[in-house]
Amino acid sequence: MIGVDWGTSAFRAFRIARDGSIRDRRAGPRGILNVVDNRFAETLREEIGLWLAAGDDHVLLSGMIGSRQGWHEAPYLPCPAGPADIAAALTDIPFDWGQVKLVPGLITADEASVPEVMRGEETQIIGCLTALGEAGLACLPGSHSKWARVEAGRITSFTTHLTGEAFAALRGHTILGRMMRDGAIDPARFDEGVARAADAGGLLHHVFGARTLALTGRMPDTDTASYLSGILIGHEVRAALDHQHGEVVQLIGAPDLTALYARAIEACGCYAERHDGEAAAHGLAAIGSHAAWQ
Amino acid sequence: MIGVDWGTSAFRAFRIARDGSIRDRRAGPRGILNVVDNRFAETLREEIGLWLAAGDDHVLLSGMIGSRQGWHEAPYLPCPAGPADIAAALTDIPFDWGQVKLVPGLITADEASVPEVMRGEETQIIGCLTALGEAGLACLPGSHSKWARVEAGRITSFTTHLTGEAFAALRGHTILGRMMRDGAIDPARFDEGVARAADAGGLLHHVFGARTLALTGRMPDTDTASYLSGILIGHEVRAALDHQHGEVVQLIGAPDLTALYARAIEACGCYAERHDGEAAAHGLAAIGSHAAWQ
Repeated sequence: MIGVDWGTSAFRAFRIARDGSIRDRRAGPRGILNVVDNRFAETLREEIGLWLAAGDDHVLLSGMIGSRQGWHEAPYLPCPAGPADIAAALTDIPFDWGQVKLVPGLITADEASVPEVMRGEETQIIGCLTALGEAGLACLPGSHSKWARVEAGRITSFTTHLTGEAFAALRGHTILGRMMRDGAIDPARFDEGVARAADAGGLLHHVFGARTLALTGRMPDTDTASYLSGILIGHEVRAALDHQHGEVVQLIGAPDLTALYARAIEACGCYAERHDGEAAAHGLAAIGSHAAWQ
Repeated sequence: MIGVDWGTSAFRAFRIARDGSIRDRRAGPRGILNVVDNRFAETLREEIGLWLAAGDDHVLLSGMIGSRQGWHEAPYLPCPAGPADIAAALTDIPFDWGQVKLVPGLITADEASVPEVMRGEETQIIGCLTALGEAGLACLPGSHSKWARVEAGRITSFTTHLTGEAFAALRGHTILGRMMRDGAIDPARFDEGVARAADAGGLLHHVFGARTLALTGRMPDTDTASYLSGILIGHEVRAALDHQHGEVVQLIGAPDLTALYARAIEACGCYAERHDGEAAAHGLAAIGSHAAWQ
């Protein structure tokens, strides 16, 4: 089968063998925002045409391609949900060159019954079920970071944190960013920000320190972005871990970001194991193996 | 004397009698960002020329006019500071039509020795010393909200919260604002946001609810800005009050904003008394009465 992780800004396809191993892969910038005039079918054919021609005509798509802004809206499936539940809720899409099915997003509610949604991350989490074991915690950092609880092979609940987008908005559109410089994150300054998040005063107070420390010459302008990143990720990780110690978090995502989150998680007395972008391929393989292909 | 609260975007002048009463007032848009080519002296003369001509030639300025971006930088004065301390640290500015003195900003550090600065707010707080009594707490809500402790007539410490600017950045530059509509704040939705801030999960999680509640039809798009405002102000107020109950907060600022903060403060089990924009005039009068005019 062919698995595609089709997001907002990226398109990643995997040719997957019957045993779940990845035989080939392609990646490019044709995320749904870069596809004009709803030419999703044509784009898909252009990207994976050679594999289709070779006889692989089972195509499973996950990610924002199944959102209102994508090819076709796949309704959210309620938690708890594992590979078999998700496979039973796939949406078929007409496609002249093969069978195309869409993975649904998941929906749940937190303790205060505020709804939570994800689309794409469920497939990555399913791809790490082995590491998550009987009862595990997964974190997928990003613009909208997700923290998901997994029990007995099913995603039971999750929460979203707007960390990445809040960082970009605070940096790009408040006084905090005025003196910031581009560059790699400085780990020591990042750690200072993570430690700051444990103090009293709250996030809205802590972030202002990124300005006053620079203004008073206590921190170089070049370091304030790292400090701000540490404050925000520190607040997210502390809130998500909620005073638990010794827990193991399965971190799924880009290596530079999971490396930072691992530092913050360890600073909170927990442990992190890091997984890279192939998690989506493994999740697509697991869901696809339960699907009713014709 | 003449007192001027000269901020980033507004210019407000008061003609103050010897007994501290306000005899006349003017206000306009000529904040420091709207003064071109550093024509501060000319602007001041144009604004208060008639009062100067009438013989009032003691002019006291507070606010961002004393910042690096203003007329002349007045160094920050360390806390604790009351009217006499501030009056002893005024900066003289050459001015052909009278004596002009600049009120310094204040500097302090919070418990984690992160520096804190204010410029302009100190004068408004001084203007409310009677209400603040022997030991009081003042809150000046805004882009950079200030919370200040006052003991025996002196400002002893303060903290800043980036609440107003964070709201504008999250609303204007993240997915949260995409479905928001302009309009007055809805008090019931604001209160829901304030209550939400008391839940576990943290600010970065709570704000995402402004999207998911709308996305799932649980909250009208028109209400999500009020809800987001309540979440942010709720987080600020809870962190600033730090689990204290029964405390009285002197709220100083624009009536629409202090009304919202009063709701949030009362939801946290404390009390609010509201003061309007004339606080700056009373503070300028109090500082001016201690100043060494020639």
